[in-house]
Amino acid sequence: MVEDITLFGIGASPGIAIGASYVLDRKRIKPVERKISASEVSEEIKAFRDAVRVSKKQLEDVKQGVADRRLAEHLHIIDTHLLILEDQLLVDDSIALIESDLINAEWALKRTLDKFRIVFDAIEDEYLRDRRSDIDSVGERLLRNLIGADQQSLAELERKSIVVAHDLSPADTMQMDKKRVIGFITDVGGRTAHTAILARSLGIPAVVGLESATALVREGMPVIIDGTSGIVILNPSQATFKEYLEKKQLYEYLEQELLSYRELAAETLDGHSITLRGNVELAEEVDLALREGAKGVGLYRTEFLFMNRERIPDEEEQYLAYREVVERMAPHPVTIRTLDVGGDKLVTDIDLSDEANPALGLRAIRFSLQEGKLFNTQLRAILRASAHGQVRILFPMITGLAEIRSCKNLLEEVKAELAAEGYAFDADIQIGIMIETPSAVLIAELLAQEVDFLSVGTNDLIQYCLAIDRGNEHVAYLYEPLHPAVLRALQMVCRAGQSAGIEVGICGEMAAEPLYALVLLGLGFDELSMNAPYLPRVKRIIRQARRSEALELVTELLQFGTAPEVASCLQKEMQQRFPGIFPVQQIRKAVTDS
Amino acid sequence: MVEDITLFGIGASPGIAIGASYVLDRKRIKPVERKISASEVSEEIKAFRDAVRVSKKQLEDVKQGVADRRLAEHLHIIDTHLLILEDQLLVDDSIALIESDLINAEWALKRTLDKFRIVFDAIEDEYLRDRRSDIDSVGERLLRNLIGADQQSLAELERKSIVVAHDLSPADTMQMDKKRVIGFITDVGGRTAHTAILARSLGIPAVVGLESATALVREGMPVIIDGTSGIVILNPSQATFKEYLEKKQLYEYLEQELLSYRELAAETLDGHSITLRGNVELAEEVDLALREGAKGVGLYRTEFLFMNRERIPDEEEQYLAYREVVERMAPHPVTIRTLDVGGDKLVTDIDLSDEANPALGLRAIRFSLQEGKLFNTQLRAILRASAHGQVRILFPMITGLAEIRSCKNLLEEVKAELAAEGYAFDADIQIGIMIETPSAVLIAELLAQEVDFLSVGTNDLIQYCLAIDRGNEHVAYLYEPLHPAVLRALQMVCRAGQSAGIEVGICGEMAAEPLYALVLLGLGFDELSMNAPYLPRVKRIIRQARRSEALELVTELLQFGTAPEVASCLQKEMQQRFPGIFPVQQIRKAVTDS
Repeated sequence: MVEDITLFGIGASPGIAIGASYVLDRKRIKPVERKISASEVSEEIKAFRDAVRVSKKQLEDVKQGVADRRLAEHLHIIDTHLLILEDQLLVDDSIALIESDLINAEWALKRTLDKFRIVFDAIEDEYLRDRRSDIDSVGERLLRNLIGADQQSLAELERKSIVVAHDLSPADTMQMDKKRVIGFITDVGGRTAHTAILARSLGIPAVVGLESATALVREGMPVIIDGTSGIVILNPSQATFKEYLEKKQLYEYLEQELLSYRELAAETLDGHSITLRGNVELAEEVDLALREGAKGVGLYRTEFLFMNRERIPDEEEQYLAYREVVERMAPHPVTIRTLDVGGDKLVTDIDLSDEANPALGLRAIRFSLQEGKLFNTQLRAILRASAHGQVRILFPMITGLAEIRSCKNLLEEVKAELAAEGYAFDADIQIGIMIETPSAVLIAELLAQEVDFLSVGTNDLIQYCLAIDRGNEHVAYLYEPLHPAVLRALQMVCRAGQSAGIEVGICGEMAAEPLYALVLLGLGFDELSMNAPYLPRVKRIIRQARRSEALELVTELLQFGTAPEVASCLQKEMQQRFPGIFPVQQIRKAVTDS
Repeated sequence: MVEDITLFGIGASPGIAIGASYVLDRKRIKPVERKISASEVSEEIKAFRDAVRVSKKQLEDVKQGVADRRLAEHLHIIDTHLLILEDQLLVDDSIALIESDLINAEWALKRTLDKFRIVFDAIEDEYLRDRRSDIDSVGERLLRNLIGADQQSLAELERKSIVVAHDLSPADTMQMDKKRVIGFITDVGGRTAHTAILARSLGIPAVVGLESATALVREGMPVIIDGTSGIVILNPSQATFKEYLEKKQLYEYLEQELLSYRELAAETLDGHSITLRGNVELAEEVDLALREGAKGVGLYRTEFLFMNRERIPDEEEQYLAYREVVERMAPHPVTIRTLDVGGDKLVTDIDLSDEANPALGLRAIRFSLQEGKLFNTQLRAILRASAHGQVRILFPMITGLAEIRSCKNLLEEVKAELAAEGYAFDADIQIGIMIETPSAVLIAELLAQEVDFLSVGTNDLIQYCLAIDRGNEHVAYLYEPLHPAVLRALQMVCRAGQSAGIEVGICGEMAAEPLYALVLLGLGFDELSMNAPYLPRVKRIIRQARRSEALELVTELLQFGTAPEVASCLQKEMQQRFPGIFPVQQIRKAVTDS
């Protein structure tokens, strides 16, 4: 049989695993439409409600069964799934469809799920789009229970295996015993889906989005997975096997070494300090960020509080959520970003579903400024949380002075309100803006005079600069973080911050890529904020570099005219400086992917 | 009755008209669905074909009846409508629907028209979107003929009137006798719809897009329309009447004076020359541009050749179209822009209909580079046309060096092909790029080294810089040509062009606004390209200004932090310098609208 069949997927959890495959052969459920008579309606509704109840019970069992302490902080994912089962949009809508259209429960459920999928597929933010998988996995479980299909569990796995599946739910992943599941690969899935997040927490290497893994892998087939590069090799040759065994040893050595960086300062060999902070969106993630050495939260995304629900969270709910993050992170600062989604993602009176280009539409600060009540509530909650630790407010998608001045005026009004009502808050709360529109880059020096700090959101900035939607497969190839225009934009922002004497941070994906660490240092960023697991990797680079060489590197890179030239130079330089950390293949991947 | 009822619409044709209203009361046709039996199919198809034949006859009559020589160059519009009547997408699709769905002809027509509308409504380009009105007016005519409704004609108008209608077709406008129709207002319509273009050719003041004009105006009611500002006043008071009578006189005086500018050089009082060119998309428009004093075509849009048709035009058809424009404009240069639409607007194999953000998708040069055959054909046609005059090629939506280098390589290949085949062409044809992405601004100095000229497309540039879709009513307020970020972007591009010693032009709407003429002069643009009617207006400003004061003005404007501050300063300065040309109200309008 053919050796070294190589598949390319999305590296969802780093590390290398080598072993025999265990194919989780759950037949995909194909719901069938059946018209029912009026007299059957109550029976179908009862069947549906039963399936919901059984599904809840199963999820509660998963929750009770979790033993691995690394998973404890992720139990909220199961809670989210339990909440979905109580969500009107899923349950009540399905029941309403059974009644109104006289159709069987499984078809009603399918149509409701389809409605959800359309909404989620239209979301451009990778993180939020991956939330769709939560709905999918709850939907799949419901469907299986509805038609009495098998809920095969990974808890039953008997020998060390690499699990191969069309998809895995977070509940599946929670039931994984690391002693037996040494890695997994799936046909579908994304890097920020909960399944991937859980795999990273468990330290189980995983590659997702392989499309045809289940079609190609036979039970027991030897498989190598490289969760860092997203490469999977089926039926490896002797030579490949040897090569990956060595890689696995190197990876595990470096991982071990990484642990030692958690407690050390983020300081270069020539004594220049940089602040490393964590990106979080749930209070639970603060502990992980602290463990990985974060000196505060550089980006607290508040969208999650607002999404997938019928009613916008009230002041008290927001206050408690923000306060918990602030208290857990104290005495380090927490940077709370105000709502950064399009109005089309929320339940409001404004109908935005037909925006031709939602990425260029009413979203983020534009939406907040228009929805005065919503914005006022959020500002009140943030200010009240500021009484419990060091809070900074971050306004997203600013394009000009008028917006930031409006924000500041509203903030002053809210302060006056709270003071009059006797609430405690930080009257000198720091204010910052996201630099993510080209306009904000071009007038960064004007904006810098109005605020206490700048934070560059590279993901959006790159897309707007290059006029591309990264979620569009036809133009995704144009998404180049090392594009000369992007480097120049970053330089303009850093210079503007320096002139104004304020801190400039970066909280997009670029901050988390060790390959870019020297570049960002050389451009002059004061703060890098990223998802916790990347912190020690970036710190390792910082601590082994000199600021002087970072400055030279940036000067050199700015001379190139195209992203591939910049990337090729950077790759060579980083390989020379950090030969152990950047083996050729991983770099190539980082350059083309990120 | 209430006096001075003021309506705000879109100024479609400049000038002031004061008179009594004539309400063109065509009842809107509401098609009704009727199921037919198989035996009725042939009868319905015959009725449909009859309606098509009658409609063609009516349009032919309109064409024959046109006496005004200013309309002669626009007869192609009627030809376009005749072509639509022969278009498979309209006629054959309707007939197919009658047969397949067993429905009456009018309902089949309605459904076919609806399909068209959805496609056209999704188009973000104002010009192309307004092409929808051609389909609408042909559809309306067909429908009226199908159900035997009255085709009331303006040819029958007996006294001097201001025509008030829900909508007017180009055919209606062609039948207008300027002696009797002194102006018109409509509920719907856009500034670049053919009806508006014809009104401008005829010199009939018009305001469109008023939404409720037909609901508010009663037959014979006195009406004032200001086609420059888009303001309509119903039942004016004595004072208002007097005010507008004076405005009308001033406007007519200035219009008369404008004629004298056509032949004069576009040169400042201190001897600095600037090149004024025309934007065209049809060969017929070249004559108008020449009459208004254009020294060449700064932007020849080729999209029109590709749209609303089933098959992409072949090389010969393109060559003949380009050649005609080139020959008519000789010896002045013609700048031909390669295809600048999204792939979703054309009939190709790539399905782009589900792009979440088409403005950030596969369009313009990205589309051309992917569709090698289509691009090759267009480059061949352009090069062949270059044998007949001075041609310059303009590539749209460039974001980096890689794209322009690919274009240049392809162009060299095409030259080699043509040379081998024995075709004549300009081997040294000039190459330019549109600067319309923020990326192109940021690396303008790199791009300038690769090409012979730069041309700024301000409409798109402003939208990408500010991350807004101007077609989205919720964020249209953020579209500010005088935004400090936009001014800085324009300055960066001009400086890059100057350093490289190449020409920098501007071909967006900003170029056509007399209020901005001094700003663009001061920023350092070498060429302003615009729709022909604006040329004398802009030239009047240039000839009455000094370059030194333009430079001072720009320095002053760049000190402001917000667009309203910039606008307010510019307005004051321009009023002081050109008191007759910029009365207060018009300026306010120009600042907020453009």
